[in-house]
Amino acid sequence: MYFGDKLANHIKKLNNPTVVGLDPRLDKIPTFIKDSAIKQYGGESLEAVSAAIIIFNIGIIDAVADIVPAIKPQIAFYEQYGHAGLFAYEQTIKHAQKKGMLVIGDAKRNDISSTAKAYADGHLGMVDVFGTPTPTINTDALTVTPYLGTDGIKPFTDVCQEHEKGIFVLVRTSNPSADEIQGQSVGDHLMDEEVATLVESWGRDLIGDSGYSSVGAVVGATYPEEAGVLRNLMPNQIILVPGYGAQGGGAEDVKPCFHKNGTGAIVNSSRGIIFAYLKDDKWKEEEYHEAARQAAMDMKEDLNRLF
Amino acid sequence: MYFGDKLANHIKKLNNPTVVGLDPRLDKIPTFIKDSAIKQYGGESLEAVSAAIIIFNIGIIDAVADIVPAIKPQIAFYEQYGHAGLFAYEQTIKHAQKKGMLVIGDAKRNDISSTAKAYADGHLGMVDVFGTPTPTINTDALTVTPYLGTDGIKPFTDVCQEHEKGIFVLVRTSNPSADEIQGQSVGDHLMDEEVATLVESWGRDLIGDSGYSSVGAVVGATYPEEAGVLRNLMPNQIILVPGYGAQGGGAEDVKPCFHKNGTGAIVNSSRGIIFAYLKDDKWKEEEYHEAARQAAMDMKEDLNRLF
Repeated sequence: MYFGDKLANHIKKLNNPTVVGLDPRLDKIPTFIKDSAIKQYGGESLEAVSAAIIIFNIGIIDAVADIVPAIKPQIAFYEQYGHAGLFAYEQTIKHAQKKGMLVIGDAKRNDISSTAKAYADGHLGMVDVFGTPTPTINTDALTVTPYLGTDGIKPFTDVCQEHEKGIFVLVRTSNPSADEIQGQSVGDHLMDEEVATLVESWGRDLIGDSGYSSVGAVVGATYPEEAGVLRNLMPNQIILVPGYGAQGGGAEDVKPCFHKNGTGAIVNSSRGIIFAYLKDDKWKEEEYHEAARQAAMDMKEDLNRLF
Repeated sequence: MYFGDKLANHIKKLNNPTVVGLDPRLDKIPTFIKDSAIKQYGGESLEAVSAAIIIFNIGIIDAVADIVPAIKPQIAFYEQYGHAGLFAYEQTIKHAQKKGMLVIGDAKRNDISSTAKAYADGHLGMVDVFGTPTPTINTDALTVTPYLGTDGIKPFTDVCQEHEKGIFVLVRTSNPSADEIQGQSVGDHLMDEEVATLVESWGRDLIGDSGYSSVGAVVGATYPEEAGVLRNLMPNQIILVPGYGAQGGGAEDVKPCFHKNGTGAIVNSSRGIIFAYLKDDKWKEEEYHEAARQAAMDMKEDLNRLF
């Protein structure tokens, strides 16, 4: 089944167009988890950091897997700890998939030709291990950058076709400087609209029964008007929307990323969910996963009120 | 000392504006190395792949460290093997630095705000390990993408300032589809020229005695005319030039990336050097490192003929 269908179906089944951003920050992980990891590894090491992240993430995943269709680990928060961090990333992905969640790796990768293929094989497909094709990172979908054009994307869409995986192409980001490049006028439209038109074309051969393509788009929630324009340019794309909550956008801001029938977008929240226990004194740190579940339910309700 | 000065000085000292792209491909690594790695790890595993890459890379580094100023490992070829691959990346970096080479991590990373900071800390700075600032990946410089604008770059330039590191911002790529976005007209100039102007501004506070900034640029060698325009827009940038050799560019094509005095650019070759032993029957596979040294010397001569 196409990734686009898998995601659309899972959102529909759980009636929840949200994704939990698993962006672990060591200073916000509960002390009892860090103490246990340090004890396990006999001291404060990168391996102990990795273990703390894994324990923390498993707690979150187990608490939300029956109500949230997907997680989106931001690889930067793992990769910063080197190979020990990447191990935590891999274990997080495996656990979420075992619990029935889809995993969108947020890595904003890309490069040219054979390098793009190496990224695609490692993140979404299989790599050659002395002649044996072997899955390694194995997320269900990956965020990628568009700056290199079609031939930087082709290796990814090839792997998506072969392994039923997906990509989300960065079209519009939610940060204050986004306009410097994305908001430049090219002819009668903006650069991000040019990119949106490319993304629509890249996804045409990967559209399933749901009407959605395995090639989605990332559109930040902080430019609602522009989001509406981009929604229209990419009718078959599932739009991954960062910027809800911590990045400043609310439910009304993300609304233009959806089609009028309430489908076609999946909204991310990271800190607002996984570190919800820090926002209300009523939670003990041992209850961090219950706080996350409550925050995920609140977010679902908030979004479902839109349509 | 600023990274820009370190690199400019090292190029001058060795009279060699080249960088060796360490992009290992398992199918091209000599059999005797793969056999030894499999034996060491008791079978064909990701750990054996990692060991094979490390042994191979050490051979190349030891063979060229006295004649080539820098290596540029492309992280995709490591990351595709997951955490075992990233371990090989880290070991490669450590060994090259021990041998006095500068290491440019080719990762084309970027994201917004705190995520960009995590990439910057992990690749170039230090990360928090239970309160102790710790270097992890620790390359001397990193390639980054410009699509998010100034606030995606700021976390990197901050770390460059603090830790004497550098970045190379992707301005123009060497692939056939590069024009789709980079070649769009914005007003009276092209998008890549808009990016070049931004890069020049991002690098202004990091210019050292050499006149070069720690913020460099990546400009592919397959568009020589455009390369000349970009060179003029970024007078203080060291231009990292992929595309020599395998990607189709020759010495004449990379010439516009240099200033008229022969400084200001560093040219990458990957396959053409590290797998040179496969191109001439005269080399035995045990001599792969000697073949690489010879190819590196030939490339140096080829480029030095330009000025």
